[in-house]
Amino acid sequence: MRYVTFALDTSLGPFTRAGCLTAAGDVIDLNSAYRSTLSDKLDPERASAVADAIVPPDLIGLLGNGSLGRDAVTEAIDSLPTDTPGTRDTSGTTLVHARDAVRLLSPLPRPTSLRDCSAYEKHIANSTRGRIPKRWYDAPTYYKGNPASVIGDGDDVIVPPGVDKCDYELEYAVVVGKAGRDLGATEALDHIAGYLVFNDVSIRDVQFREMSVGLGPAKSKDLDGTNVLGPALVTPDEWDPHEEQRMRALVNGEEWSVGVTTTIHFSVGEILSHISRGETLRVGDVVGTGTVGGGCGLELGRYPVAGDTVTLDIDGLGRLTNTWRAHEQHEGTS
Amino acid sequence: MRYVTFALDTSLGPFTRAGCLTAAGDVIDLNSAYRSTLSDKLDPERASAVADAIVPPDLIGLLGNGSLGRDAVTEAIDSLPTDTPGTRDTSGTTLVHARDAVRLLSPLPRPTSLRDCSAYEKHIANSTRGRIPKRWYDAPTYYKGNPASVIGDGDDVIVPPGVDKCDYELEYAVVVGKAGRDLGATEALDHIAGYLVFNDVSIRDVQFREMSVGLGPAKSKDLDGTNVLGPALVTPDEWDPHEEQRMRALVNGEEWSVGVTTTIHFSVGEILSHISRGETLRVGDVVGTGTVGGGCGLELGRYPVAGDTVTLDIDGLGRLTNTWRAHEQHEGTS
Repeated sequence: MRYVTFALDTSLGPFTRAGCLTAAGDVIDLNSAYRSTLSDKLDPERASAVADAIVPPDLIGLLGNGSLGRDAVTEAIDSLPTDTPGTRDTSGTTLVHARDAVRLLSPLPRPTSLRDCSAYEKHIANSTRGRIPKRWYDAPTYYKGNPASVIGDGDDVIVPPGVDKCDYELEYAVVVGKAGRDLGATEALDHIAGYLVFNDVSIRDVQFREMSVGLGPAKSKDLDGTNVLGPALVTPDEWDPHEEQRMRALVNGEEWSVGVTTTIHFSVGEILSHISRGETLRVGDVVGTGTVGGGCGLELGRYPVAGDTVTLDIDGLGRLTNTWRAHEQHEGTS
Repeated sequence: MRYVTFALDTSLGPFTRAGCLTAAGDVIDLNSAYRSTLSDKLDPERASAVADAIVPPDLIGLLGNGSLGRDAVTEAIDSLPTDTPGTRDTSGTTLVHARDAVRLLSPLPRPTSLRDCSAYEKHIANSTRGRIPKRWYDAPTYYKGNPASVIGDGDDVIVPPGVDKCDYELEYAVVVGKAGRDLGATEALDHIAGYLVFNDVSIRDVQFREMSVGLGPAKSKDLDGTNVLGPALVTPDEWDPHEEQRMRALVNGEEWSVGVTTTIHFSVGEILSHISRGETLRVGDVVGTGTVGGGCGLELGRYPVAGDTVTLDIDGLGRLTNTWRAHEQHEGTS
């Protein structure tokens, strides 16, 4: 399953909806599709109320319903007469939208929380000129990001005024689908709802100044719109980071970075296990696993600039494309 | 105004409600009190719906209503026949609860976000053996905490197994009451909903190991129940950190730490201004200002242990008291 969140413009204003992609890349409205399956059992008002509870239009709510939500989603998809765009129910509600008839947002426009690890040895070696801190090997190291700063595929990244080093970071992130605490590394895998591509946009001009004080990165990672998550939340039955999945970063189509998921030093199970020690993981928590070795401009000594288009492409997870825009450029055109 | 959040046990189960303290320390149920003022204009169902929208029972929702919510709260309090505990409306709903008839929770049981600064020079000097990082003086330094780890006055702090240095930190925190971005230091003051006492419980055994990798503190500050915020959210008309407010930490009644708010190096306006650069502050964001000089066990070379009671007492903000409990002790009695 490839879950998405999309915006639908209606004459009542825009609505945000949870969906999933068809094989052709079109978008099924899961709440509407499930409501449709209830329409021969319940009157329309009750069908809406029950569908809103079991398959709510926000993805974190749906994930929080666990197997109750998953089973209903399966039933809804299996009951569709066809997954051709424009498919409607008897009331005229569109159940399947053409990909370009809706705006895809980040699947998780506002994660419950955002953590980001540094779990690739080559990245930390490259970023520290080989002086890897001894403690790095003890346990997965992470900082907490700003979950209110999320954007999605196709959104612009605004380069702040005076910034020369607005960098990308090539990562994938894990989304928690079931709450838990004190989880073992194997057990933790059962708490994963899925994976998505993560571009942890980083202002290097600011980051080293901040980190020199010892409390970690803050504004260098947290500005509005500097955490790109998408394009879809891919469930673990469709994607496995333990297989050798290729990760690439392209700037204006030119390959700048390439790596594979299997070069990670700590596994996703070990990462979630560590975070969950004495600390409850919650549905909708997002955990970046860290930049793959060579997966950012800092390691290459060059950075995208305003006007450049950055694409992160991870085999099986999809492509995340964003254009760097100068602050003034953006203000002038918004 | 001293806003609180309280739990009310009913035969329908516990409910969480926003309230405020009377001069005697009793608790006004703000949603019920406001609904009561509407009862001669609206039928009961509409009065409930309007009261739930204007004075919702969750405090962040109420703060988000800005002056609309504040004016309604003022009207509700002014319309009370008396603020004696047990005051009811004509339907029998209790409008004023005796302090000990309810459980006070943290005023913000789940802040929108949690940041914590290091803004006192003496604290950073004491914590670094006088080697203050040069960049500390450039701008307020902070890390992001775990807003899901909040507890309130009277709750136990669980000392994790094997931990020797479960420390307190004596701070006050600012609560954002109005969204904003790119705020000036003076302008930022208009975005403050109020202040509360903050005990940033810190596991020193883990903290220095984590910080040596460079991404800042994580598990050492984030374990379940290690961010104590309370007892009340005191509005800026009643408390001003720019006045010399005494801050004290008592362990089993013995004064361990004492300081004053005016020793801060960056003002709260400067702190909020810095955070808001390119980054939207949101209603319910909590920003700790940092440990006052001498305000933690690390600076004193001694730590509270299981069984000890730690009280943070800030003039005008109130007292926050928590007992340190061994993990096993807690598990055995829960």
